[in-house]
Amino acid sequence: MEELIRLSHGDGGKYTSILINELFYKYFGNEILLKGSDSAVFSISKRKLAFSTDSFVVKPLFFPGGDIGKLAVCGTINDLSVSGAKPLYLSAGFIIEEGFSISDLSKIVRSMGQICKETGAMIITGDTKVVEKGDMDGLCINTAGIGVVENSYMPKKIKKGDRIIITGSIAEHGTAIALERYKIKASGTFASDCGPVYNIIRSLAPFYKGIKLMRDPTRGGVATALNEISASAGKGIRIYENTLPIRREVNAVCSILGLDPLYLASEGRVILVADPGMSQEILECIRSCKDGENSSIIGSFFDNGNSLVYMETEAGGRRLLNTLEFPMLPRIC
Amino acid sequence: MEELIRLSHGDGGKYTSILINELFYKYFGNEILLKGSDSAVFSISKRKLAFSTDSFVVKPLFFPGGDIGKLAVCGTINDLSVSGAKPLYLSAGFIIEEGFSISDLSKIVRSMGQICKETGAMIITGDTKVVEKGDMDGLCINTAGIGVVENSYMPKKIKKGDRIIITGSIAEHGTAIALERYKIKASGTFASDCGPVYNIIRSLAPFYKGIKLMRDPTRGGVATALNEISASAGKGIRIYENTLPIRREVNAVCSILGLDPLYLASEGRVILVADPGMSQEILECIRSCKDGENSSIIGSFFDNGNSLVYMETEAGGRRLLNTLEFPMLPRIC
Repeated sequence: MEELIRLSHGDGGKYTSILINELFYKYFGNEILLKGSDSAVFSISKRKLAFSTDSFVVKPLFFPGGDIGKLAVCGTINDLSVSGAKPLYLSAGFIIEEGFSISDLSKIVRSMGQICKETGAMIITGDTKVVEKGDMDGLCINTAGIGVVENSYMPKKIKKGDRIIITGSIAEHGTAIALERYKIKASGTFASDCGPVYNIIRSLAPFYKGIKLMRDPTRGGVATALNEISASAGKGIRIYENTLPIRREVNAVCSILGLDPLYLASEGRVILVADPGMSQEILECIRSCKDGENSSIIGSFFDNGNSLVYMETEAGGRRLLNTLEFPMLPRIC
Repeated sequence: MEELIRLSHGDGGKYTSILINELFYKYFGNEILLKGSDSAVFSISKRKLAFSTDSFVVKPLFFPGGDIGKLAVCGTINDLSVSGAKPLYLSAGFIIEEGFSISDLSKIVRSMGQICKETGAMIITGDTKVVEKGDMDGLCINTAGIGVVENSYMPKKIKKGDRIIITGSIAEHGTAIALERYKIKASGTFASDCGPVYNIIRSLAPFYKGIKLMRDPTRGGVATALNEISASAGKGIRIYENTLPIRREVNAVCSILGLDPLYLASEGRVILVADPGMSQEILECIRSCKDGENSSIIGSFFDNGNSLVYMETEAGGRRLLNTLEFPMLPRIC
């Protein structure tokens, strides 16, 4: 390993994996952690519980479509949701820089409370630390959450031909953050997709036997999530550019800023791996849900003995989608 | 409320309470949170579970007797333990400054793994974020934890005459941090008491019907913890200076630095409220445990209709111990 922490150790890509595998697994290693899921799943009195945590350092703290508080609650709720769990209880840990505006803190806390009300999750324990001015950039929040794995949803063996579905347009969060952070004016409407995905997932309960895996493409975006899925399945993934729900405005802004929407975070989307026989029904169910209108089947698995991800471009070429090696946009969440 | 966050909003005293009551309770308010315990307790399939979180920003990161990693794991394990729960599962969220030494990170992570091994708790989920150089002072860690409330320990009604017991010498952590941070050389041995308290608490299981409350006197120290206990019981607490286990060296250093040991954090001690009829047996049990040799009965409850805490000094006077209003030593944990 290297000697110093780099930004890329925190971008959810290749270097984050190295840190996890060579450091955290080495000292924390246990059966549950080593599964490497979005949430850890364990049993208490025969009930399966999911447990997940995320720290949030997004910059700026307020952005179109949300703020760090909304992001912090949705982030953990969504990690639980894609593990098939109903989010129940959350913790919230605040680290605040001396001199931070209490009025801004109130807005953030209010956002958190709002998402809890909407989803039925409850923040039941918390902690606040304050550090001297200059020792932290504003405020960061950690949330951890507990959910009950309520349905028959557990990851299933992925086969050749299984479909990849995304529940909505991609890269909305990353694009909104970039525009806000760098104070860029662009024509069109831009807002983070930050929001809870639990309702869509709950609507899919009748189809759980056809859903093999769910994941939320946050840090590292769709391409990173697909690489993780491909690696864990030991199979290749082929996606089609012309099926990818990317809004034209988002694409245009990304081109100008030199950002690749395939690697930009979404904060309210889910990638699903679905049995081909049920994928159309699943797609229709998602499309009938709020925030699911732009859902699309974007690709499928193939089997040549390797795990890799590529995209068939509209021009007819093939583009290999590697794991992110360098952070495109730090502090995205 | 004021307009800006001050250091005192994070010291666990009066201003932290204001923030909790006027802001967090306002927007997050729910029955479990409003109990304001060290851990939130809820039920899943008739099993009572405890859930707790803490963020750690201690400065310096390494100190005699421990480091931020040991502190982060012990802190959450201890919060669960004093709620009568056996700590089972932890999450760990790291926020790291770009350029941080990976060798130092390894030492911290190894410490965390070590305490897990010693106590049987497991870190089963985690998260790593990296922020640009200058946006954070080194590294901070959040831990959240889940435990099973295994014994018949639940807080009981506190009565006049109930005894206050502390499991060991106080202010060791705060003193060690102050000496290390300000690079002060003092003769004597100084080391943080940072460590898990679960074993002592487990040994006390046969006496649970005589134990009315447990609390760990971390941020804000013994005086702050006693004020919280006094307020929740609606009764006064009288402690005796000559029964307080403070090492002479610790007292001397505190005098020189202008620190009050009664308000300095311990990170491996427990305050217990005990039925007077069982307090001697409980004391003897604690004294027979590792790290319990210096346990002492330090005071008792009285009832004049008010909640207040005072100390009968060795000189025969009475000193009122108010809640901490100004932070004595920021970033103590």
